[in-house]
Amino acid sequence: MRRTGVTVVGSGRVAGAFCRRLAESGETNLQILARNADAGRKIANETGAVFQHTPQALAPSAIYIIAVSDRAIREVSETLEPGDGLVVHTSGSCALDELSSRIARRGALYPLQTFGNTQNVDFEKVPLFIETEYAADFPELELFARRLSGSVSPCDSEQRQQMHVAAVFVCNFVNHLYAIGEQLMERNELDFGLLRPLIEQTAAQVAAGSPADLQTGPAVRGDRFIIERHLEALRHDPDWQRIYELLTKSIINTPKNG
Amino acid sequence: MRRTGVTVVGSGRVAGAFCRRLAESGETNLQILARNADAGRKIANETGAVFQHTPQALAPSAIYIIAVSDRAIREVSETLEPGDGLVVHTSGSCALDELSSRIARRGALYPLQTFGNTQNVDFEKVPLFIETEYAADFPELELFARRLSGSVSPCDSEQRQQMHVAAVFVCNFVNHLYAIGEQLMERNELDFGLLRPLIEQTAAQVAAGSPADLQTGPAVRGDRFIIERHLEALRHDPDWQRIYELLTKSIINTPKNG
Repeated sequence: MRRTGVTVVGSGRVAGAFCRRLAESGETNLQILARNADAGRKIANETGAVFQHTPQALAPSAIYIIAVSDRAIREVSETLEPGDGLVVHTSGSCALDELSSRIARRGALYPLQTFGNTQNVDFEKVPLFIETEYAADFPELELFARRLSGSVSPCDSEQRQQMHVAAVFVCNFVNHLYAIGEQLMERNELDFGLLRPLIEQTAAQVAAGSPADLQTGPAVRGDRFIIERHLEALRHDPDWQRIYELLTKSIINTPKNG
Repeated sequence: MRRTGVTVVGSGRVAGAFCRRLAESGETNLQILARNADAGRKIANETGAVFQHTPQALAPSAIYIIAVSDRAIREVSETLEPGDGLVVHTSGSCALDELSSRIARRGALYPLQTFGNTQNVDFEKVPLFIETEYAADFPELELFARRLSGSVSPCDSEQRQQMHVAAVFVCNFVNHLYAIGEQLMERNELDFGLLRPLIEQTAAQVAAGSPADLQTGPAVRGDRFIIERHLEALRHDPDWQRIYELLTKSIINTPKNG
């Protein structure tokens, strides 16, 4: 008998986002497996899914999405009995062999998005990157991914890893620079909100252009007069001073487009 | 006789943005003084301003906006004969005494925005920060600034300097991280456009929250397994590896909110 339905393993932000999108897309045969029963039940209640606390309790599914921390993927995948179901992880930095070799059909389904503030993510616009161990499994995963998002692309494990590094730069590190900006404002009795139009404009302008063409500021102008003033202004924050120096040097050393 | 009208000195992006906003707001008595005659005439044509190539040719104005590079402010201000007109510079990193001491009424009018891609900047939402040497001059500058933007705040030279450093972090450095992301994608035959939803979401979520609460990624999770994999993935790019290490360390060392 042909398997149907989807099992999502995990109860974190990525697992929750997949469950909500699956429910939205009309999936009625949805199971959640999670060690954290409170978090798992909460997602199950929101999405009409069936919550299970142990892998033994799971009914067979056509697709298993393992959305747990990278270090837990192997262990979790050892406990599943997916039979001929397709098992995918959602990690940017793990190859397919992070999934147990007991699993017959392995793949990856990587969402290139941050789910820190889940309520505002439009999952239909999240780029999904898919890979399967066997070419024969690819069409099934592609069809499934296209139910969830309008942007589905193939990528291999090496590309996925490099993309994950790129994501760390444009998301996690960018957010940290926002956090430094927030601290600089607040300690000078200035509201962080005053930086928001600048943050929005900086992000908005790369929607149409290449960031390499849009670089402004003292570093790209080679304005050492201002750079020295800024380093002096950061004299009480040696960590931020080092970040300022290193990023300034990197901007100066970046070849310009055209 | 009471002076009227505005003179903008400079022909760069900031000078152009001020001229366009002044024209939009109904200012008909507008002069532009610029060394670069082509750029100055172009802005004058767009805005109905009178272009002048030398300070001697200027008619008297009520307000002079010096929007030139920081290093040129002193020299330019030495050549002006503003009489009892109010002279402001637009620099984040210069104190008022960067303007010639010959000038009787000195101030600053700092726009906290990037004008790299000028056509898309909504000047009415640009936060303007104002300072005058004499308290008696403040109301005139405040009234003038409120004609241009809905966000006008007082700030002193030290606050302005710190804010400029914050702007470098959340704009110039952020754009450079986008540029690194672009290069990582392109060298792996992946389209930079695939990073755009992530860039947008990362910026959008700080519109409502504090970046300190929104930090995600391997560094804030203390996930050394992934951090080591990423550093290995950057082995051919020692500069980016150092940036990765330093920002990761800075995230780990940042105390969490709450």
